[in-house]
Amino acid sequence: MQFLSDNAAAVHPAVWRALHAADAPDSPYDGDAISRELDAAFTALFGRECAALWVATGTAANCLALSAMVPPHGGVVCHREAHIEVDEGGAPGFYLHGAKLMLAEGASAKLTPGSIAAVVDPIRDDVHQVQPHAISITQASEYGCVYQVSEIAEIAAYAQRRGLGLHMDGARFANAVAFLGCTPGEACNGVDALSFGFVKNGGMSAEAIVFFDTALADVVRYRRKRAGHLQSKGRFLAAQILAMLENDVWLHNGRAANAAAAEIAGAAAGRLLHPVQANEVFLKLTAGERAALRAHGFSFYDWGSQGARLVTSWNANPDHVAALASGIAAL
Amino acid sequence: MQFLSDNAAAVHPAVWRALHAADAPDSPYDGDAISRELDAAFTALFGRECAALWVATGTAANCLALSAMVPPHGGVVCHREAHIEVDEGGAPGFYLHGAKLMLAEGASAKLTPGSIAAVVDPIRDDVHQVQPHAISITQASEYGCVYQVSEIAEIAAYAQRRGLGLHMDGARFANAVAFLGCTPGEACNGVDALSFGFVKNGGMSAEAIVFFDTALADVVRYRRKRAGHLQSKGRFLAAQILAMLENDVWLHNGRAANAAAAEIAGAAAGRLLHPVQANEVFLKLTAGERAALRAHGFSFYDWGSQGARLVTSWNANPDHVAALASGIAAL
Amino acid sequence: MQFLSDNAAAVHPAVWRALHAADAPDSPYDGDAISRELDAAFTALFGRECAALWVATGTAANCLALSAMVPPHGGVVCHREAHIEVDEGGAPGFYLHGAKLMLAEGASAKLTPGSIAAVVDPIRDDVHQVQPHAISITQASEYGCVYQVSEIAEIAAYAQRRGLGLHMDGARFANAVAFLGCTPGEACNGVDALSFGFVKNGGMSAEAIVFFDTALADVVRYRRKRAGHLQSKGRFLAAQILAMLENDVWLHNGRAANAAAAEIAGAAAGRLLHPVQANEVFLKLTAGERAALRAHGFSFYDWGSQGARLVTSWNANPDHVAALASGIAAL
Amino acid sequence: MQFLSDNAAAVHPAVWRALHAADAPDSPYDGDAISRELDAAFTALFGRECAALWVATGTAANCLALSAMVPPHGGVVCHREAHIEVDEGGAPGFYLHGAKLMLAEGASAKLTPGSIAAVVDPIRDDVHQVQPHAISITQASEYGCVYQVSEIAEIAAYAQRRGLGLHMDGARFANAVAFLGCTPGEACNGVDALSFGFVKNGGMSAEAIVFFDTALADVVRYRRKRAGHLQSKGRFLAAQILAMLENDVWLHNGRAANAAAAEIAGAAAGRLLHPVQANEVFLKLTAGERAALRAHGFSFYDWGSQGARLVTSWNANPDHVAALASGIAAL
Repeated sequence: MQFLSDNAAAVHPAVWRALHAADAPDSPYDGDAISRELDAAFTALFGRECAALWVATGTAANCLALSAMVPPHGGVVCHREAHIEVDEGGAPGFYLHGAKLMLAEGASAKLTPGSIAAVVDPIRDDVHQVQPHAISITQASEYGCVYQVSEIAEIAAYAQRRGLGLHMDGARFANAVAFLGCTPGEACNGVDALSFGFVKNGGMSAEAIVFFDTALADVVRYRRKRAGHLQSKGRFLAAQILAMLENDVWLHNGRAANAAAAEIAGAAAGRLLHPVQANEVFLKLTAGERAALRAHGFSFYDWGSQGARLVTSWNANPDHVAALASGIAAL
Repeated sequence: MQFLSDNAAAVHPAVWRALHAADAPDSPYDGDAISRELDAAFTALFGRECAALWVATGTAANCLALSAMVPPHGGVVCHREAHIEVDEGGAPGFYLHGAKLMLAEGASAKLTPGSIAAVVDPIRDDVHQVQPHAISITQASEYGCVYQVSEIAEIAAYAQRRGLGLHMDGARFANAVAFLGCTPGEACNGVDALSFGFVKNGGMSAEAIVFFDTALADVVRYRRKRAGHLQSKGRFLAAQILAMLENDVWLHNGRAANAAAAEIAGAAAGRLLHPVQANEVFLKLTAGERAALRAHGFSFYDWGSQGARLVTSWNANPDHVAALASGIAAL
Repeated sequence: MQFLSDNAAAVHPAVWRALHAADAPDSPYDGDAISRELDAAFTALFGRECAALWVATGTAANCLALSAMVPPHGGVVCHREAHIEVDEGGAPGFYLHGAKLMLAEGASAKLTPGSIAAVVDPIRDDVHQVQPHAISITQASEYGCVYQVSEIAEIAAYAQRRGLGLHMDGARFANAVAFLGCTPGEACNGVDALSFGFVKNGGMSAEAIVFFDTALADVVRYRRKRAGHLQSKGRFLAAQILAMLENDVWLHNGRAANAAAAEIAGAAAGRLLHPVQANEVFLKLTAGERAALRAHGFSFYDWGSQGARLVTSWNANPDHVAALASGIAAL
Repeated sequence: MQFLSDNAAAVHPAVWRALHAADAPDSPYDGDAISRELDAAFTALFGRECAALWVATGTAANCLALSAMVPPHGGVVCHREAHIEVDEGGAPGFYLHGAKLMLAEGASAKLTPGSIAAVVDPIRDDVHQVQPHAISITQASEYGCVYQVSEIAEIAAYAQRRGLGLHMDGARFANAVAFLGCTPGEACNGVDALSFGFVKNGGMSAEAIVFFDTALADVVRYRRKRAGHLQSKGRFLAAQILAMLENDVWLHNGRAANAAAAEIAGAAAGRLLHPVQANEVFLKLTAGERAALRAHGFSFYDWGSQGARLVTSWNANPDHVAALASGIAAL
């Protein structure tokens, strides 16, 4: 009974069907008919003009998006525990040619205008200090917490005042929108570029970089090729993404994963390290309690010495979820 | 009737079967059981110890391999028409942090010790000039020509004398081995790292970087993640590669594509711009002749103003190939 | 009466004499007779084999030294307030091609094995996290505090256990050695590369990178040229350095600056924010007190809202120093 | 009798005087009074608004200027024998983060609109090929030949049509203007940034980057610091430059060096490999002839197996020049 990572989950049947349908000769790279549908599909979804590019990983999506906003001598404000800082093997340093990540605080890995300002304001406006050029936020955050639409609006307003770009790492964007109950467009007000994740949510190997500032896409098209991310049979990536968008598969999957996490959280009152708003549950669990759960067949990661991280997937097995909830309640 | 690119061809049934078989939860990234089989599979294939990493594109494979051989202040000798120079959007400059490509001559895009020396020898051994650290050759070459085993041995001997690494861009390695009739190991004697291509040959989205100098792999593991090429569901890439290796699908496919090209070449005596040894045919064709062929339903790229490039695929339709051969013969 | 920065001080007469003496035709770059004396001069000074290169700035010295120790995918542990992190405009990101600075704590901007381990130990040994490759310490520290020989030995031992290089930013190395009273060699035990500063201490435009691991110098010779730091009339840089070494001008100057700082510190009991061990004095001073001092003609930088930084130079005017000490005592 | 390089020549007395005059405390870096005069001085010289930054080397000047014109995924067209391609140790790859030099032909190392177009026109406008963003020309060229004002105008017109920046490497700009007899402003019509060389022409360690597109300077200020080229006692660089501009020392020195070269060229009719328009003379000389000249005490570099390069300096000794001219004539 696997709660290690949504990365490990299966591929959605609609994605499989789309992959097979795409297995006909067409132009290579992103010249095929499917890839050329992406801009329109995201424009329809978000209710404003978008340019969208497929890539294989969230790391590539995040770093390519940021590379169009930040010059090599600039900086990006992100949370101290942001994925781009902690878990991407230094990819921002590579893609941004040595630009600097500027680390801000915030509960549950969420930034606020205040925590951003605490990093930005002390920077002297001289050439001895790296100047910020963009902000990156993660929606849902690395602790499974969701920015409210109003919170993003406040950050976007701050970004605009300071002339900073705004990037959203949406590896779990689906879970966030499912939680918020708003439209995708509302969830991205003020955002310049979104890494829209599909792999954790039923896809196989395709993420989208969605540019609301479409001029950025013109740069990233070159950067994507230069990074070796322009796959020659790109139609297979585009097909995955369109399949996830069609009939709101992405949203249904996000809701399903969230519901599973909520069920577990409901059984863990008093143990929650963070509010459970998406598909991740961070619990206080002693080593003994973790061992007990594992003895019952549950697999998950430790979180420090006194905790655990449990991640639910779009196809979480209801029996497994119920069993885990019971198991936690019974500790 | 499509002869534009092997990039556009369909995915082999064995690959599809392997993809479906891989759709079960396992560890993310390259910690899954399938990914962990790669080293052994290539070691068996090549008859000596290998370390192998999957990536999604040939550009990533080439540049990651070279990034472990060449420091940012160094250079790579390659052919003036090498793919890394001409068609990778500057990816070597990105992955090698500004290292330099040093362009050498050679018939049919093949290097020789002499043409390499013509580039290397005039370089003054001082800090004002970039020093070479590696050689990259393409097998089969960008003009569909194949290095003989002895030719590679000569280049490898030169590389060793000068202390240079040797990389082989094997986007069409299968076609080359099919032509040579040797073992894969014989085809790589003296090579430090091979970009072993599968996507042009029946794969969907997986290439292998095979390190014969396995220490290089330890560096590239970090570089792959840093480049955003460590896919979270890596099992789907590993599965494609193993499916291609099993039962020598890669070699059968290479032979099939070569045979189709040979059939076309056989009908085009006097028109061949390069020997046809793999799955590419470069022909002298006037604009009128090209128009005539296209009017019969054949699609292909112009090659300059007086020529055409025709590429055959692993699943080339025999009727289409025969029709094209007849069409050319009838011009 | 200037206490803003030792950067602003005059050039020492011995340096002027050496500059004029160097104004005769010789080989360009570092092929001249003076440049070729550097290795021997530093080898004599440190009592072990050294390779030494001149550069124009401390930033270049620090970053070139580190670039030979740290691959682009690696990291450098330094203090959160280290000059390379705070005041070099992102130069480490440039020179190290995106490698990461890993920020550690420590009183008065000094690292300890414990504070380094607090950064290094939590790093997972996997490709998702940047791995440390070197440590950089500043001697004297950014707060004018000096590592004892034993403290450096402990850090060096830690570095060796973890396989990390050790770099010393010695922008104020002279002041540190003057304080320690040890030999230069003792002050560098366990260090792989030292940025030996002269510009703040009576030089015009020359710093030395001293490599105790001489293999590093062979890389940096290429990197220096590639960074545009190989001046064509390099004899003028080498001459400055030799002039500073001859007759221990560097050490006398360091002592003089330290003595001036000590005199000021002696008048400021109860106000010291950090021990005064080199040529920098950090004081608690209210806005009113700062205004009063400035009204008497003293110039210096604010340090936060409740403090000031006062820096003394090798040629500090004794009357100015005495006046400042009196002025502070009289507050 | 030294004709190896103008790099080896002495420092002009006016520069020495200015250096000594600058040896008074002032603000560090480029905040001093002398540095702040540069913009106005160059604006006066060129007759239009300029922003000017000092750096220590021509390599830094060239690469910093280009770094503001060319993104990491772009390219720079330059001559196959341009200094930035041949003799800067890969510095453009470093400063431009992997951007590509695109090598064009042209007699005597001079580009023409036609030779530039021969490189630019075949570039497909797609992401697989690096796109040009700037042109760099060297004035006087690496073979001591000078672009006429009309030739630069043609290149500038081409650059403007194609949306490319135009950079001039003016390591020997003084010699070129001396030859042309035009104003400095006329010599730079259509140029966006000029590396104005002083070190070969009587300076010690200061070159200027002059931006006619002043927005570029705002970027380069950050890049200069990031490259470790913002010297803390920058007043000594600014002082050299102002001293060279005052009373047209730069122009007088350029004329003097040119005259010496012309005298040598006049004695070498039939031997000239390139027209002698600046201060470099490239001659056909057999090994025996070179040996004979060296036996008479002349030092110079071989140029291939059948030639020699002779460079004259601002302070060329008239007796040495006359002796060399006689020596050549007598061969």
